[in-house]
Amino acid sequence: MVSKDMLNLGRVRSAIRELFEFGRKRAAIVGSENVYDFSIGNPSVPPPAALTQEMVDLLSSCDPSALHGYTSASGANETRDAIANNLNRRYGTSFTRRNLYITCGAAAALTSVMRALTVNEQTEFIAIAPYFPEYSIFATTAGGKLVIVEPDMAHFQIDFAALERAINTNTQAVVINSPNNPSGVIYSEETIIRLAALLTKKSAELGHPVYLISDEPYRELNYTGKPVPFVANYYAASIVTYSYSKSLSLPGDRIGYVLLGNDMPDFDDVYDAIAGSARVQGYVCAPALLQKAIASAMDLDMVPDLSSYQKNRDALYNGLKAFGYRCMPPDGAFYLFLEAPGGDGDAFAEAAKDEDILIVSGRSFGCPGFVRIAYCVAYDTIIRALPGFGRLYERFCK
Amino acid sequence: MVSKDMLNLGRVRSAIRELFEFGRKRAAIVGSENVYDFSIGNPSVPPPAALTQEMVDLLSSCDPSALHGYTSASGANETRDAIANNLNRRYGTSFTRRNLYITCGAAAALTSVMRALTVNEQTEFIAIAPYFPEYSIFATTAGGKLVIVEPDMAHFQIDFAALERAINTNTQAVVINSPNNPSGVIYSEETIIRLAALLTKKSAELGHPVYLISDEPYRELNYTGKPVPFVANYYAASIVTYSYSKSLSLPGDRIGYVLLGNDMPDFDDVYDAIAGSARVQGYVCAPALLQKAIASAMDLDMVPDLSSYQKNRDALYNGLKAFGYRCMPPDGAFYLFLEAPGGDGDAFAEAAKDEDILIVSGRSFGCPGFVRIAYCVAYDTIIRALPGFGRLYERFCK
Repeated sequence: MVSKDMLNLGRVRSAIRELFEFGRKRAAIVGSENVYDFSIGNPSVPPPAALTQEMVDLLSSCDPSALHGYTSASGANETRDAIANNLNRRYGTSFTRRNLYITCGAAAALTSVMRALTVNEQTEFIAIAPYFPEYSIFATTAGGKLVIVEPDMAHFQIDFAALERAINTNTQAVVINSPNNPSGVIYSEETIIRLAALLTKKSAELGHPVYLISDEPYRELNYTGKPVPFVANYYAASIVTYSYSKSLSLPGDRIGYVLLGNDMPDFDDVYDAIAGSARVQGYVCAPALLQKAIASAMDLDMVPDLSSYQKNRDALYNGLKAFGYRCMPPDGAFYLFLEAPGGDGDAFAEAAKDEDILIVSGRSFGCPGFVRIAYCVAYDTIIRALPGFGRLYERFCK
Repeated sequence: MVSKDMLNLGRVRSAIRELFEFGRKRAAIVGSENVYDFSIGNPSVPPPAALTQEMVDLLSSCDPSALHGYTSASGANETRDAIANNLNRRYGTSFTRRNLYITCGAAAALTSVMRALTVNEQTEFIAIAPYFPEYSIFATTAGGKLVIVEPDMAHFQIDFAALERAINTNTQAVVINSPNNPSGVIYSEETIIRLAALLTKKSAELGHPVYLISDEPYRELNYTGKPVPFVANYYAASIVTYSYSKSLSLPGDRIGYVLLGNDMPDFDDVYDAIAGSARVQGYVCAPALLQKAIASAMDLDMVPDLSSYQKNRDALYNGLKAFGYRCMPPDGAFYLFLEAPGGDGDAFAEAAKDEDILIVSGRSFGCPGFVRIAYCVAYDTIIRALPGFGRLYERFCK
């Protein structure tokens, strides 16, 4: 006798997990080097060597009781100071520690923010497809619901008419994710400016702020040479959820933050409600050793080494385009979102298994006509998988 | 416009936090060495030096992508294997990795278990006073409620008549915490045997298992020379929530587990529902580096160095008894639960501030006639605080 909802959520195998099992079986037959696993967003670039050295230094030189002790629930002061200063250097902002709440990664940041903003069961969060599937589970668990708005399908930017129609008196926040998982698209500065204008207008009409939750674990994975617009500089009621999982390749270590914009309406209420919702979920503090390591990494302005992702991206994008495939240029993150030839992402992903190519249908991201290819893999995997993609194209387009 | 509940929970200053602020102010005036802070359960014994060395070795020798990568949500196989083997060596059990779900500490374990076991809003968890205050918040957030049963006040063991009266068709689990925070009491083997018999009888009467959630972060902090009874050896439907915060002095690092007994009714359902509830709260996996370190610690059978806690305990207990105070012998953990002279824990804790002694009223633990003294402090703090305790006794007992 257990919770039915929790049982289903714990038991249902995600599409990605199914693929993982399939890949294991095939690897036993054809050899793991002949299974082309593009299913998982696990960074293939290691953390910076300097970060490993910082962790060794901390362990070797710090008072261990302080290093491993509880921090305040909102995070160690030195960590919050270091992140604020790092952001201020990069974005011309004037954050202090009080803008930041350190979390066990972006997922914890999102669940804490959504629960904080859920005032009753009518509360709505709006996400723009394609979107990270867990948003829906997090919004529902918080007691509210997730509303999906279709994107501008030509460029995967925002369809503002559709977004405006979706905003109503129950809307508490719009959730964006740029650079985007799964599309790899980065919202342009024009998009962010228009979004800020729309949310400002709607907030005034509704008489309450419509918050912008900007989920940015891929912020630094940007291959365009142009900066990713920093939302807090465009819209006061911005709430950034961040993780070091991708930028510093620490996905298992669970370290990230919530950032509130300086001119956030009801700043103290939002901050304190986030603290309350982190508390009720059992988040006592973010991992202390990692907090100290991140403080060093931010003081040293550590950034990811993008060269191998970029090389992968170019080989994959150019290779697929040469066959005739259609997709958005993957400007950021490490995903390529391919229009499934034939228009059915499920069928295409299933067929790809015949080539021992593991890719995820776009259905769970809200775009069933697409497949997601995670190119955070060895370069060689891409080169050797391309002929299979070529055969698949022929099969679906003849 | 935020969640009122979350705002209140984030904003309300706990009694402990209030004391912390008071202590800071007083330290600025009288010097920090003259403020006797017994308010917080932060281990004063550092982690084992061998554990620090293991972490340095992992960082120096492991593939960093593997060391910091995602583990499966239930935890790395090597970690679960090492914990199972360690428990099997100590308790003669036959656990395997599938008995274990690794968590971000005991709080995450408790929120995940309570959410998994909450089938509807009638669901009840029973805790026995004195109890850890967050149990109530965790049960409520899961969607159920916490029912408190008074203890046998003579020995702080279980009042079985009272417990039996409290169990009804909505009861999903009884929560125990032995060694206990705040009482320091360890449930005797006789208590555990009687508890198992009662829960077995009630489960049969009710036609559904009444689970036993045994919250055991202090399991190894035991000064009696006799083992703490291991509940899974006495009752099949035992769910152990554990943390390495106290035993290995890693409270900030957030690492612990849920253990399900081998003959647990509905084993797979309970395990999978725990996975579901960890997922909806945003617990992607427990910190990966810490998981690897714990695997080494368990392989090496690391245990806490209890000598300084024991020395503190003896000095405090004997010193207070000599003044005439009454309290249970603190057999485990690092708390002493003092009967407040005059019978009002709030008034006594407030008066103690006049002596710059910081202690917490028992009210929030469900025992308002007591105060909790956390003796995980420097030995010198105890020796120098004792005269103040003497004056307080005179003041309340004359």
